[in-house]
Amino acid sequence: LASRLPNVGTTIFTVMSALATETGAVNLGQGFPDFNCDPALVDAVSTAMQAGLNQYPPMPGVPVLREAISKKIEALYGRHYDAGSEITVTAGATQAIITCILSTVHPGDEVIVLEPCYDSYVPNIELAGGVVVRVPLTPGTFRPDFDKIAAAITSKTRAIIVNTPHNPSATVWKREDMLQLQDLLAPTNVLLISDEVYEHMVFDGQPHESAARYPGLAARAFIVSSFGKTYHVTGWKVGFVAAPAALSAEFRKVHQFNVFTVNTPVQHALAAYMANPRPYLDLPAFYEHKRDLFRAGLANTRFKLLPSEGSYFQCVDISELAVPERSLPEGDFCQWLTREIGVAAIPLSAFYGNGFDQHVVRFCFAKKDETLVSALERLARL
Amino acid sequence: LASRLPNVGTTIFTVMSALATETGAVNLGQGFPDFNCDPALVDAVSTAMQAGLNQYPPMPGVPVLREAISKKIEALYGRHYDAGSEITVTAGATQAIITCILSTVHPGDEVIVLEPCYDSYVPNIELAGGVVVRVPLTPGTFRPDFDKIAAAITSKTRAIIVNTPHNPSATVWKREDMLQLQDLLAPTNVLLISDEVYEHMVFDGQPHESAARYPGLAARAFIVSSFGKTYHVTGWKVGFVAAPAALSAEFRKVHQFNVFTVNTPVQHALAAYMANPRPYLDLPAFYEHKRDLFRAGLANTRFKLLPSEGSYFQCVDISELAVPERSLPEGDFCQWLTREIGVAAIPLSAFYGNGFDQHVVRFCFAKKDETLVSALERLARL
Ligand SMILES: CSCCC(=O)C(=O)O
Ligand SMILES: CSCCC(=O)C(=O)O
Repeated sequence: LASRLPNVGTTIFTVMSALATETGAVNLGQGFPDFNCDPALVDAVSTAMQAGLNQYPPMPGVPVLREAISKKIEALYGRHYDAGSEITVTAGATQAIITCILSTVHPGDEVIVLEPCYDSYVPNIELAGGVVVRVPLTPGTFRPDFDKIAAAITSKTRAIIVNTPHNPSATVWKREDMLQLQDLLAPTNVLLISDEVYEHMVFDGQPHESAARYPGLAARAFIVSSFGKTYHVTGWKVGFVAAPAALSAEFRKVHQFNVFTVNTPVQHALAAYMANPRPYLDLPAFYEHKRDLFRAGLANTRFKLLPSEGSYFQCVDISELAVPERSLPEGDFCQWLTREIGVAAIPLSAFYGNGFDQHVVRFCFAKKDETLVSALERLARL
Repeated sequence: LASRLPNVGTTIFTVMSALATETGAVNLGQGFPDFNCDPALVDAVSTAMQAGLNQYPPMPGVPVLREAISKKIEALYGRHYDAGSEITVTAGATQAIITCILSTVHPGDEVIVLEPCYDSYVPNIELAGGVVVRVPLTPGTFRPDFDKIAAAITSKTRAIIVNTPHNPSATVWKREDMLQLQDLLAPTNVLLISDEVYEHMVFDGQPHESAARYPGLAARAFIVSSFGKTYHVTGWKVGFVAAPAALSAEFRKVHQFNVFTVNTPVQHALAAYMANPRPYLDLPAFYEHKRDLFRAGLANTRFKLLPSEGSYFQCVDISELAVPERSLPEGDFCQWLTREIGVAAIPLSAFYGNGFDQHVVRFCFAKKDETLVSALERLARL
C-alpha cells in the first residue's frame, strides 16, 4: 500500500507523551492542563445528557452555542458573525483547520505556512493536493518577515496560515503585523486561515489581535479557535470556525462529510457556560502567574528563556547547557531530558519540515503549580 | 472562490430534519432515535468527567475502549484485532470513512461505490482526488450484482465501499454475498471499506455478516462501526475502525491530522458500558418489534412495503398511492408528505448520483412506539 503521507510518522506530541508516561517523567511536552476543568462545566454536560440531548445536533452546531460564540467575538473583537451562516462548531481546532484546507485548496494550489508551524498544517495541505510553500519566521525572534511572505505570494497562492498566539514560539502578533498582513493581502485573492486557539492567553496586558478586528483580513479569513484550550478540556474536542457566509458555506460542505457534526451535550453545556465571560476573561492572569512561576524557576539556570507573550508555552534555548550527555539535535535532547532528568519537552525542530535546529525546546506550563515546581527542581540539576 | 464540491448542497438529512422541525411533522427522516439512551451510560460519562478524565486521550483512543472493541469483535465475529495497533476510535463513522479514503486513495485511483449509497462516500472520494465508479445494486431488490462489480474492477481500483446492513434499502448481505465478494477480490489489491454501522440491527434471527468473519476480506478491510447507533447516542459522535496493522498505521497518519483524537470521558464511559454485552445483544429484538409495529400499521395502506432485513429503516414503494397532490419525483413527494401529511421521510433518489427515481422513500423506525403510532395515523390518511 503506497502511503498518502510517506513522510509522516506519529505526531511528536503522542511520541513524547507516551515516553513521559513510560518513564514517569513530568510531562511538560504535549500542551494540555494537568488540572481539572470547572465542575460547573461538567455538571452542565451531565444536565444536558440527562435532559436527553444525546442525538444529532444540527450539522453546523447547536444554535445556542453558535449564538454564544457570535456574541463573544463581537464583544471582544468588534465584528459581527451571523450565527446562522457564519459560525460552525467543529470537533476541535485540528478538524477545523483540515476542513478549511480541504474545502478551499484545489490540487496544485499553493498554501503558505510560516515555519515553525503546527505539525498538522503541512500534511493537511498535502492531502488536499496542494503545494506547501514554507516561509520561515525570523530565526531567533520568530517574528513574521513580510518581505519573505510577499516574495512567496504567486498567482497560485490560495491561502496563508497564520497562528497567533504562536505555537510553538509563544510569540504574539502585534497590531502592526496584522496591518502589514492586511495591506499585503489587499490586492490578492489569498485566503487567511487564522489559527487563534490560544486567543485567551495573551499576557502583559496586551490584546489578542484576532483577524476579526481587521475588516480586510476578516473578509477573507477562517478564524479557528478551541474550547478545549480555553476551558481546560482538551479531551472534549470542540472548537469552532467563524468565516464570512460564502466561505462558511464551502466549509460546511466538507464538514458535513467529514465529522458531520459535534457532540451534542458538550455543545449545550458550553453554550450555558459561556453566558459567564469570567472564565475566559480571567485566563490571561491565570496563565501569566504560571508563566512567571516557571520563568522564575529557570532564571538562575543555563536555560536561556525566550519571551513568552502568549499561549501556554515557554521556549528555552539550550545551547548554554553544559551537561555531558547533552546531545543536539533538539530531538535527542528532549528524549534525554525525559529519560534522564524526568521532564518531557518538545523540540522545536518538530515544527519544521527540514528539522531546522535552533537549540530551542518548548515546555508547556498549563500545569498545577506543584507540577511546575517539581519539574523546576529536576531542571535545576542541569 | 471555486468550490471543491460544486455538486454538493446540504445533506438531505439536515434538509429534511429542518423541514420537519419547521412544520411540526413527525420526523421519520434522518436516522436517529427519539428516545434517550440508558441512564447508566450517562452516569458513566459523568463519572469519567468528575474523575478528571477531560484531557487528550491517546491519539488512537483510550486503551480500555480499544480492548473492549477488540473483545467484542472477537466474540461476535471470531477475528482477533490487536487493540494496540489495529483498532482506532473515531469521531463517528462518517469521520472514519473519510479517513479511510484520505489515507488510501491517491489522485486518479478508482473507488467503487454501490448505488444507492450513503451520501458522504462520493464527496469523500472526490476530496481525495479519486475517481468515483458507480455500480448499481439490482433495482427493486437492492442485491449486489457481482457481474457488474467484477466488470467495474480495473488496475486502477483502489477500494470498494460495501455497507451491510444497508442504508437506505435495509437489505442485509448474506454469507453467499460475502463469499462472492471474497472470491472476486482475491486476485486483486482492492481494499474493502466495510461500513457496518448497523451491525447490531439484523432481524429475523439472521447473523450480521461482518467482513471480519471472512479472512480474505478482513485482511484488506477497514471495518467501520458506530457507537451512536448501537447505544442510542447519535449525538455523541463516536465510532471505530478495525483494520490490519499496516492499514491502521496509514489510517492513523491521517486521523491524527484530522480530528487528532476523540472525546475522552465518552470513550471511558463506553469502555465501562461495553463490559455488559446485553445492550447490543438485545438490539435486534428491540428494533424488530418497532419494525413489525411500523409494518403492521402500513399493511392496509397503498404504501408497498419493501423487506427490512436490518438497520432501522423501512423503505416503501409509493407508486400505488392515489393522492391528488402526489408528485414524483420522490424528493417532491417527501416534501409534500412532510408539509401536508406531517410525516418526514427521505427519498431514495438522494442516495444516487443521478437522482435515479424508483418511487421509493425511506422511513426511520428508531422511534418511541407512540411516535410510530402517531406517524401511522397520519400515513393512514393516504
Ligand atoms: C493535538 S495534541 C498537541 C497539543 C498541542 O497543540 C501542542 O502540544 O502543541
Ligand atoms: C449523519 S445524519 C444521517 C443519519 C443517517 O445515517 C441517515 O439518516 O441515513
